[in-house]
Amino acid sequence: MNKPLNPSEFQTPEVTSGPLPSSSKVYTAPDADPSLRVPHRLVHLHPSANEPDVPVYDTSGPYSDPNVTIDVEKGLARYRKDWVLERGHVEEYEGRDVKPEDNGGATGRFLAREFPVKNKPLRGTGEGPVTQYEYAKAGIITKEMIYVAERENLGRKKMLDGAQARVDAGESFGADIPVFVTPEFVRDEIAKGRAVIPSNINHAELEPQIIGRNFLVKINANIGNSAVASSVEEEVEKMVWATRWGADNVMDLSTGRNIHNTREWIIRNSPVPIGTVPIYQALEKVNGVAEDLTWEVYRDTLIEQCEQGVDYFTIHAGVRLAYIHLTANRVCGIVSRGGSIMAKWCLSHHKESFLYTKFPEICDIMRQYDVTFSLGDGLRPGAVADANDRAQFAELETLGELTKIAWEKGCQVMIEGPGHVPMHKIKVNMEKQLRECGEAPFYTLGPLTTDIAPGYDHITSGIGAAMIGWFGTAMLCYVTPKEHLGLPDRDDVKVGVITYKLAAHAADLAKGHPAAQIRDDALSRARFEFRWEDQFNLSLDPETAKDYHDQTLPKDAHKVAHFCSMCGPKFCSMKITQDVRDYADGLSDNEKAALYPVEAQEARKGEALTGTEIHAGMEEMSEKFKDLGGQIYLSADGTVREDDH
Amino acid sequence: MNKPLNPSEFQTPEVTSGPLPSSSKVYTAPDADPSLRVPHRLVHLHPSANEPDVPVYDTSGPYSDPNVTIDVEKGLARYRKDWVLERGHVEEYEGRDVKPEDNGGATGRFLAREFPVKNKPLRGTGEGPVTQYEYAKAGIITKEMIYVAERENLGRKKMLDGAQARVDAGESFGADIPVFVTPEFVRDEIAKGRAVIPSNINHAELEPQIIGRNFLVKINANIGNSAVASSVEEEVEKMVWATRWGADNVMDLSTGRNIHNTREWIIRNSPVPIGTVPIYQALEKVNGVAEDLTWEVYRDTLIEQCEQGVDYFTIHAGVRLAYIHLTANRVCGIVSRGGSIMAKWCLSHHKESFLYTKFPEICDIMRQYDVTFSLGDGLRPGAVADANDRAQFAELETLGELTKIAWEKGCQVMIEGPGHVPMHKIKVNMEKQLRECGEAPFYTLGPLTTDIAPGYDHITSGIGAAMIGWFGTAMLCYVTPKEHLGLPDRDDVKVGVITYKLAAHAADLAKGHPAAQIRDDALSRARFEFRWEDQFNLSLDPETAKDYHDQTLPKDAHKVAHFCSMCGPKFCSMKITQDVRDYADGLSDNEKAALYPVEAQEARKGEALTGTEIHAGMEEMSEKFKDLGGQIYLSADGTVREDDH
Repeated sequence: MNKPLNPSEFQTPEVTSGPLPSSSKVYTAPDADPSLRVPHRLVHLHPSANEPDVPVYDTSGPYSDPNVTIDVEKGLARYRKDWVLERGHVEEYEGRDVKPEDNGGATGRFLAREFPVKNKPLRGTGEGPVTQYEYAKAGIITKEMIYVAERENLGRKKMLDGAQARVDAGESFGADIPVFVTPEFVRDEIAKGRAVIPSNINHAELEPQIIGRNFLVKINANIGNSAVASSVEEEVEKMVWATRWGADNVMDLSTGRNIHNTREWIIRNSPVPIGTVPIYQALEKVNGVAEDLTWEVYRDTLIEQCEQGVDYFTIHAGVRLAYIHLTANRVCGIVSRGGSIMAKWCLSHHKESFLYTKFPEICDIMRQYDVTFSLGDGLRPGAVADANDRAQFAELETLGELTKIAWEKGCQVMIEGPGHVPMHKIKVNMEKQLRECGEAPFYTLGPLTTDIAPGYDHITSGIGAAMIGWFGTAMLCYVTPKEHLGLPDRDDVKVGVITYKLAAHAADLAKGHPAAQIRDDALSRARFEFRWEDQFNLSLDPETAKDYHDQTLPKDAHKVAHFCSMCGPKFCSMKITQDVRDYADGLSDNEKAALYPVEAQEARKGEALTGTEIHAGMEEMSEKFKDLGGQIYLSADGTVREDDH
Repeated sequence: MNKPLNPSEFQTPEVTSGPLPSSSKVYTAPDADPSLRVPHRLVHLHPSANEPDVPVYDTSGPYSDPNVTIDVEKGLARYRKDWVLERGHVEEYEGRDVKPEDNGGATGRFLAREFPVKNKPLRGTGEGPVTQYEYAKAGIITKEMIYVAERENLGRKKMLDGAQARVDAGESFGADIPVFVTPEFVRDEIAKGRAVIPSNINHAELEPQIIGRNFLVKINANIGNSAVASSVEEEVEKMVWATRWGADNVMDLSTGRNIHNTREWIIRNSPVPIGTVPIYQALEKVNGVAEDLTWEVYRDTLIEQCEQGVDYFTIHAGVRLAYIHLTANRVCGIVSRGGSIMAKWCLSHHKESFLYTKFPEICDIMRQYDVTFSLGDGLRPGAVADANDRAQFAELETLGELTKIAWEKGCQVMIEGPGHVPMHKIKVNMEKQLRECGEAPFYTLGPLTTDIAPGYDHITSGIGAAMIGWFGTAMLCYVTPKEHLGLPDRDDVKVGVITYKLAAHAADLAKGHPAAQIRDDALSRARFEFRWEDQFNLSLDPETAKDYHDQTLPKDAHKVAHFCSMCGPKFCSMKITQDVRDYADGLSDNEKAALYPVEAQEARKGEALTGTEIHAGMEEMSEKFKDLGGQIYLSADGTVREDDH
């Protein structure tokens, strides 16, 4: 549970480490650059499965690698720095000093300990490409692009058999799902603006990943303290915990004290991209008085965060002065923190938002560090009544305009989206966003499909998220059970992550991703064959699945039982089906023909069986079934299996 | 947690009773028959809301009525018996004796106590209509039809303002959503076969409800023991608990001992329709040996259950001999208990299923008691790999054939559906079912949209359920977190119910139900205005919403706080929005014009403001904002509100 701990009593954060059940961390080397080590998780099945182990996408970083010694005080290995340096056009420099306002003026026992290691930041010199977008448009394939292609393929070296058929059988609403991801495909998608690899040149610990409509749907988890809850130690563990369960990206939305120091501990220990909303820290620097925000404070905050290595910034540059009154008649007004802050600033100064007027300058800064834009949906609907209104779409149109400017400046861009949207209004959001924003990746919060279930908004939004992911949204921002009610704790973070992983996967399946169904099929086969441990281990949350099973059937003997407590031994449909199947498999051709005379006739090119033949076949079947004792679970040699006694 | 209790130590079941938070049970009298008392729940809002109390649909029965004394030993009031008797064409008769096999041969300390009251059953004499379908087709409006119309309207006496616009703004895929439900509309829908009111003439305690595409989407919860878990007391409480949280219908899927006695306790105490799968009890009577099932045993079981008052039977009459081999290459074979039992019977006897061959006789029995058919999907897919295969659709085609026979015989019919279906394959299920089954109501289990998340299958299926409900499915059968893993306990039942309520409501919203959004809007207004208790009380699960809030901000003072622990006092977007809104409202026309010159110009019919006018307006605004102290939360007289200090 979130409790504000005394910052001066700061302990080394304890983070969850170790492999997931029955899993190994494996690294593959891409053909295009064998020096790279790209991580995946391999789920080991029981030998009796007679099936290959199943690779799954792995966001958990070195924490789940038993061969890596974790020392949160040192941070993760900064291996990516070399990639950046060898590309050139960057310089190391002194960097900005940390100022008291960076931590909300906290001092003494209120000030959290600084991260023990200080690195000098890098920035682009302007002499050549720095961002992944610039490299892509220059026709250059970076190490990050090779890395993410290997990751998307789960380390496979070539297209799967039947991949094209699976893509064709899906419904992707005009997307371009590849049968196999090549580094060139990655480069091309990024050059088109259709995908981003959020990867600040100063986030040297990063395991890169790609966000785009034609790649696996990604999810984002939010962490961060507030003025009334949580601590640095808890937030670092939340990041590790969220990525353990599958968060591809994590935003630190801290609004309390110690924002700078908290963030440093997080980024230095994060294998996934870290996003922020810089206006929050800027607001803390002016003591929470929105009207006192200035471009200068904001600019300084951007640079501070760029130097630390933040990979993407949510910037509500679409909350324009002229749009604010469009929210006047809404049920829920402006529900975005950043949006409401900028609305207040605009009205009190009766000026256009400086995020909008200074947008080119913001681009210049972000380009130097390759920080990706997440153009914020400050006017998103916070109630179904407000969905798809003029305020929301006016902002979206402005985000489209800003996307072009950002691309012009060489920056990577993604677009944030709603919110609260009833199901029948979801698709038009996707279509409009593709049109207005040049197919830049869409990154939505849900959407929630009804307002009436606080406490269950991970589910109300999981529905909308699965749907909009299917329609083409590239990243889904999670919602926890605490949405609207309070700050999520560690358990809420896990439930939110698992919910959004399953929604993203449901979308991948529906879109026709060529490999998505491999995991479903492996798990379903394990289920059908009563390989309980395999079923648990292949699932998104093996511990919970096993715990739920064990609540009523806890003994090890039950893990090979051909039933569970739902139906008990006599009623388990899977068990009965196997009996049926084994029996049918054992039928001779005559018996099968007698059972299915129409198919037999077709097989004999129209020549029907005689009544005598049918009767004889049936007699044969009846005898054989009785001989086998009525209950059949045969092993390969035709004898009854031991475990059926 | 489910624990098998010693049946001979049977205690009077303790059931949860009392009102939900800030709610009253209200009864309205329909204009068409003022003698009826139709229940609803009225959620009371805080006086400061200045809004009417909100009526919501109420499935909880007399248990939540503080004016009713609950005595589980006596059962609920058998008030509906008079309705049935006064219609005529029925006779009371001795009824069948309970036999030991009805309780699985349990004796002595294994035999649960019988329900203390024995009623003589009624059955149709054949001289005139008995079923709701027969009455509807004869042009007769029954008390049940008047009752359910009143219920669907939540007691409103006429169409809401703007109802037509709301229906038009929805997307119902060709359904016929009424702006206001009349008894005649109900009759017509039932006569068309498009809706059913499951209401066995012997379930005299029933509060009738309607299932159909043009009515509110309904949900079903499953309870029942198994051989390895649970007791009569726990099952009665699960029924009360499920209906408290919103289950419209409940199936007793018991497969253990004491099936008859358990069911009697449940039905006598149930305000909602109770469904069963008669083949389970029939199988228990033949000691779990599927091959020993006979038509005679099954027939006897049907009559036994009809006499008790079971309202709907799941009957897997579509699992035909010729279809079984179509499941041979499936990943998960046959996952339906009833389907696998009949498949085993068919193969071992190499005969057509007696459920199919004796279907007309089954109709004759069910018609006598008005038991509704739930034509079972015994060949539904249990893995996404098996979705929409030939086995599944062959059965659906047969269910369509059987629907016609059942209607011919005067029986009410609904059709069961899948299962495990990835999102892109869901819609075709709805379209095919409408076509094959003459628009009989569809009643699906989810569907689950991916297999990879056991432990979270209420969510994987909530996604599919919301979508297929939107597409036209009339009832959604819930799935709990324990699906695939074990028997659900009380907590699982609640989570399953809430999940399916929100999915059904999301579907109602998207379809354009004229009143659905009232609850969302009321809750969102409460949220926006920081009426925390109102937000909780309007939600589907007020206790959980409040508990989640209180985990970080437990004091009563926090319940009027204009923030929660998510953002704290300075960052709450709702708070800031209210400041912004109050400020904008206070602008004079000049100020507004200066702020929004384009709109002002339009208002002045094209005459633009001068630069001087604009500047003057802006100065005015700036001064006014500063005068008001920058932080504005005004009361009606323009002074700063006390609670903002």
